Amino acid sequence: MVRTAVAGASGYAGGELLRLLLGHPGVEIGAVTAASNAGRPVAALQPHLAPLVGRVFEETTPQVLAGHDVVFLALPHGQSAAVAAELGEGTLVVDCGADFRLRDAGEWERFYGSAHAGTWPYGLPELPGGREALKGARRIAVPGCYPTAVSLALAPAYGAGLAEPEVVVVAASGTSGAGKAVKPHLLGSEVMGSASAYGVGGTHRHTPEIVQNLSAIAGRPVKVSFTPVLVPMPRGILATCSAPALPGVTAEALRSAYEKAYADEPFVQLLPAGQQPSTGAVTGSNAALLQVALDEAAGRIVVVSAIDNLTKGTAGGAVQSMNIALGLPEELGLAVTGVAP
Amino acid sequence: MVRTAVAGASGYAGGELLRLLLGHPGVEIGAVTAASNAGRPVAALQPHLAPLVGRVFEETTPQVLAGHDVVFLALPHGQSAAVAAELGEGTLVVDCGADFRLRDAGEWERFYGSAHAGTWPYGLPELPGGREALKGARRIAVPGCYPTAVSLALAPAYGAGLAEPEVVVVAASGTSGAGKAVKPHLLGSEVMGSASAYGVGGTHRHTPEIVQNLSAIAGRPVKVSFTPVLVPMPRGILATCSAPALPGVTAEALRSAYEKAYADEPFVQLLPAGQQPSTGAVTGSNAALLQVALDEAAGRIVVVSAIDNLTKGTAGGAVQSMNIALGLPEELGLAVTGVAP
Amino acid sequence: MVRTAVAGASGYAGGELLRLLLGHPGVEIGAVTAASNAGRPVAALQPHLAPLVGRVFEETTPQVLAGHDVVFLALPHGQSAAVAAELGEGTLVVDCGADFRLRDAGEWERFYGSAHAGTWPYGLPELPGGREALKGARRIAVPGCYPTAVSLALAPAYGAGLAEPEVVVVAASGTSGAGKAVKPHLLGSEVMGSASAYGVGGTHRHTPEIVQNLSAIAGRPVKVSFTPVLVPMPRGILATCSAPALPGVTAEALRSAYEKAYADEPFVQLLPAGQQPSTGAVTGSNAALLQVALDEAAGRIVVVSAIDNLTKGTAGGAVQSMNIALGLPEELGLAVTGVAP
Amino acid sequence: MVRTAVAGASGYAGGELLRLLLGHPGVEIGAVTAASNAGRPVAALQPHLAPLVGRVFEETTPQVLAGHDVVFLALPHGQSAAVAAELGEGTLVVDCGADFRLRDAGEWERFYGSAHAGTWPYGLPELPGGREALKGARRIAVPGCYPTAVSLALAPAYGAGLAEPEVVVVAASGTSGAGKAVKPHLLGSEVMGSASAYGVGGTHRHTPEIVQNLSAIAGRPVKVSFTPVLVPMPRGILATCSAPALPGVTAEALRSAYEKAYADEPFVQLLPAGQQPSTGAVTGSNAALLQVALDEAAGRIVVVSAIDNLTKGTAGGAVQSMNIALGLPEELGLAVTGVAP
Repeated sequence: MVRTAVAGASGYAGGELLRLLLGHPGVEIGAVTAASNAGRPVAALQPHLAPLVGRVFEETTPQVLAGHDVVFLALPHGQSAAVAAELGEGTLVVDCGADFRLRDAGEWERFYGSAHAGTWPYGLPELPGGREALKGARRIAVPGCYPTAVSLALAPAYGAGLAEPEVVVVAASGTSGAGKAVKPHLLGSEVMGSASAYGVGGTHRHTPEIVQNLSAIAGRPVKVSFTPVLVPMPRGILATCSAPALPGVTAEALRSAYEKAYADEPFVQLLPAGQQPSTGAVTGSNAALLQVALDEAAGRIVVVSAIDNLTKGTAGGAVQSMNIALGLPEELGLAVTGVAP
Repeated sequence: MVRTAVAGASGYAGGELLRLLLGHPGVEIGAVTAASNAGRPVAALQPHLAPLVGRVFEETTPQVLAGHDVVFLALPHGQSAAVAAELGEGTLVVDCGADFRLRDAGEWERFYGSAHAGTWPYGLPELPGGREALKGARRIAVPGCYPTAVSLALAPAYGAGLAEPEVVVVAASGTSGAGKAVKPHLLGSEVMGSASAYGVGGTHRHTPEIVQNLSAIAGRPVKVSFTPVLVPMPRGILATCSAPALPGVTAEALRSAYEKAYADEPFVQLLPAGQQPSTGAVTGSNAALLQVALDEAAGRIVVVSAIDNLTKGTAGGAVQSMNIALGLPEELGLAVTGVAP
Repeated sequence: MVRTAVAGASGYAGGELLRLLLGHPGVEIGAVTAASNAGRPVAALQPHLAPLVGRVFEETTPQVLAGHDVVFLALPHGQSAAVAAELGEGTLVVDCGADFRLRDAGEWERFYGSAHAGTWPYGLPELPGGREALKGARRIAVPGCYPTAVSLALAPAYGAGLAEPEVVVVAASGTSGAGKAVKPHLLGSEVMGSASAYGVGGTHRHTPEIVQNLSAIAGRPVKVSFTPVLVPMPRGILATCSAPALPGVTAEALRSAYEKAYADEPFVQLLPAGQQPSTGAVTGSNAALLQVALDEAAGRIVVVSAIDNLTKGTAGGAVQSMNIALGLPEELGLAVTGVAP
Repeated sequence: MVRTAVAGASGYAGGELLRLLLGHPGVEIGAVTAASNAGRPVAALQPHLAPLVGRVFEETTPQVLAGHDVVFLALPHGQSAAVAAELGEGTLVVDCGADFRLRDAGEWERFYGSAHAGTWPYGLPELPGGREALKGARRIAVPGCYPTAVSLALAPAYGAGLAEPEVVVVAASGTSGAGKAVKPHLLGSEVMGSASAYGVGGTHRHTPEIVQNLSAIAGRPVKVSFTPVLVPMPRGILATCSAPALPGVTAEALRSAYEKAYADEPFVQLLPAGQQPSTGAVTGSNAALLQVALDEAAGRIVVVSAIDNLTKGTAGGAVQSMNIALGLPEELGLAVTGVAP
């Protein structure tokens, strides 16, 4: 049994990690920690995790986190490095925060306003070379939820050299992506019946991560216009991604590139022609659903992807990467069935 | 491996059965049948069930359903008897419809307007004597979703003789309880932002089933005023159930009766004092969450229960009963963690 | 032109008051005040009130509120008395808070834990004698949203002497009823897809107000078991109200009592037989929709009512009462059409 | 009093027309017609329109529609021409359908598969020359909801010559945009908790209308990649629109162009810097809210617009155009306040 701990377990990412770990046949759950919620019952903040009733959040300290094989970090950005430094090199540390995702320190500083902590192996095994980089890793940076949805959507297009390096992404997201901190615009009364964009004009912090991923695959700088849109649902990201098609690209070549790229991927599913992804179909599952189209009049490749932001977009991706790092079957403890309707 | 079939698998109950069976380590899925949807791809109607991509709904015929250890029926009411008659007595038939729930033929005819098909062992193991009745059974009537929520809520009160036999239930329900048949009032545009009651005045067909369960426990006729309310969520039932407290009943005696009744039940959880059940906490799980209160000014016992109508309220209850009937561990393949938020 | 002010205008009740006053042909809007939001642009907190763009919330002080014909108070409970004391007796003060609703000081203290401020004319003109009490009034206590829904639902039954004095109410409510203060359980992620009860066991503060209204009509003490249920919609209350029918009461007598009671009411509509109220039909309108039923098996009268908690349940009721007090046409500035779907 | 009729009044566009006309001080409502719903009570299909209780839908025939000053058509596409032909030239016919929006018969035939009926004055007065074209008109084609949101968002950019003619639009839409016809994917259970794209790859019928509008303003062909996304809300469109900025365009120049374009428009509001449009703020209102940004890294102008698809996007736009055509004050009967939260 792999002994796991979750630091920052009172939030949504932490709750989803616990849900998945409770259902994972190869792990047991050790420490469950929080910051301001330390001392409170887990059941008060995560009432859906019945098996943890009776448990109390501990404080996030090196002592509490010591002695685990795997420590998942679901902390506010900027806090992971200090915690990780206290954990031995043999401990697998899986960071669900942003701290170790970016390779370019300048980009980190521009978007986060603090010193860059470093770069860890990136937990998106479906990207070219991604799986290999995770085998045996003891530090893993879990991708952001939007970069997961967008990178899976566009990697085959750039991998196969089909698109110009000018991407436009508009991604509808459920509210859990904004976290559990109480802010007026996240009140139920505000979000139900309403859609609104944020981070408009390229200011969202996931932008440089998307640029990094796509540029690496394309082998040249890819410009990305990214707009997230908050919509009235608790979970899910639906990313509509497009880029100008290179001359001569056909619908068949496009589809074929995607079929090839994901033929053997357990969690990425190119839908049959005529069927569009919906976030409802992936609720609670680690699947990513894709559909591709070539808009000949507009001259653009359009790819739509759907993931659960908390599962494949965060905690599921984290568990998948843990499985790879530890040599466990990659799909262990991860569903590809969504809870629908 | 237990070989299972699901008849009527294109609807919501059928989809949930398939989701649970896909995650059940002791079964395999054989025939997956439908009526008007026979011949269509499973993925077109149940896009959340990725592992069944490539499958096509077969027709619901005796030939197709033959050769399975367990056949789940999720058919319109009135159709189960004919299908079951064609299946051998050694086959476990689990009926998610209403046909075999009621013992009183007159009540059946009054509420359903057709001839009574009979009565099968009742799949609510948490009721007194309920578990025993299911061991080795080869025919099981899965309770209605509302009767599950209400019977679990009030059984201890009547079992311990704490309440007058006059019950008032108002139960908020998600829209999946109304099924997948397209009706104007179930359009998303109609249900979002709106709550409405139906079956007002005791006309809902689950009323006699609630009466039957509570009267059996109370040992005398229990009158039930039941009003279901459609609210804007896809899943979940929140039942607010009350009855006049008998003289001398105290809050302590009340809570104690519930603690005793459910101490060993894996799927029923009396919440800690001060915490109220929410349907969001049981989405996709087989748990039932309860809280009890004594309203001294009004002289009533008030019990609130939350279940997922499709899981504990239908398909989860069906799988739980199957497990008992077959001698499998009762919890096999059933989560007690909800998918939240 | 009647000159109006709204104190506490940054919350939901205040926002709805402003929305209605902006559409009211007989008034103009003077001071618009807030507490912690004083100094902020109205548009930042009430972006739906386009005509007020450029306005800034002023502080809630006697100086700012002076010089208006009507002052609406939408303040936290316990604060209205002090503000009202500074306003001249000729000023019409309409309090949307709870402070002046209850006649029984003991009940006030039991439920609110502070000294009773007094009792003002009660702003529910549809109750017996209600309209007369408001004519020429200069102080008005606007009813609570739940008491509005429940009192309108049951007044005719008690007015006509058809029911035993033992009421059970379960009322589904949209989240705006819980206000705009940020609390974790009101986050969109928490409320979407989830229903939960609160104030279970008779502890909700609207209980004594319901008791007061129904007892006055019945002419004897009415016991009330009241359970509010939070459901995933921003607005609306659907109250399911029942009481034992007195012997001999028929469905015809019941319906007839309701027809008589509300025949001339502009805002209360008894729906045609066979049609149930939905909150979606009254969004933004001042209408209350009712349907009645006699459940003979359970021996209970069941009445379902739907209102918009912010309109008829708060701000619309306030404007309606203002109209009566000032001798304006009662319906001025108030819609009976909802914004649906 | 202007005497109006609404043909096709049982759907969502028809219901919104009736709601607005009921509140319009200059009109009265004559015939209210339907197709398959003819003979049914208006209240059964439009329960939010309390003032029409007792009315019954008449059949959509020339006789029934005769004798009105204004006839609004809310019919399935392809049916408006025949109805309009029977109405005198002095009757103002306002078509909410698509039939007379496009100028290019070839585009009509490509997207609608039938013969082109013609082109009527286009009911978007905020476009260059738009208001003049409507004065005194007796035939008006109301724009599509998406083209309204997108054209208002991008007209100033092209009017001021700031953008390359390559547009990408992703627009989140509430479900009422898909109409009231019952289709499985529009069930509440399907849409709540789920987002999905449709018409991907440029196949949505509003695409040529967007192209037509923007090309006319730009004075050269504009390519448009348009993807609509269905999100879980009943009303509202949030359109995220972008195009490559021409060299040298600054954020100041961009904002200035928008300020100038809409300074005197009663229904279009450029939000203060730092505030983003939300559809919740325009529910039931005729307002369009805009915000603009220059994404320098991506080299794109990004404009987000929010409208209510049924109000400014359909019925409100229709009434606004009627007001202009008849010489009434343009804002008569139209709110700029939304019903929020």
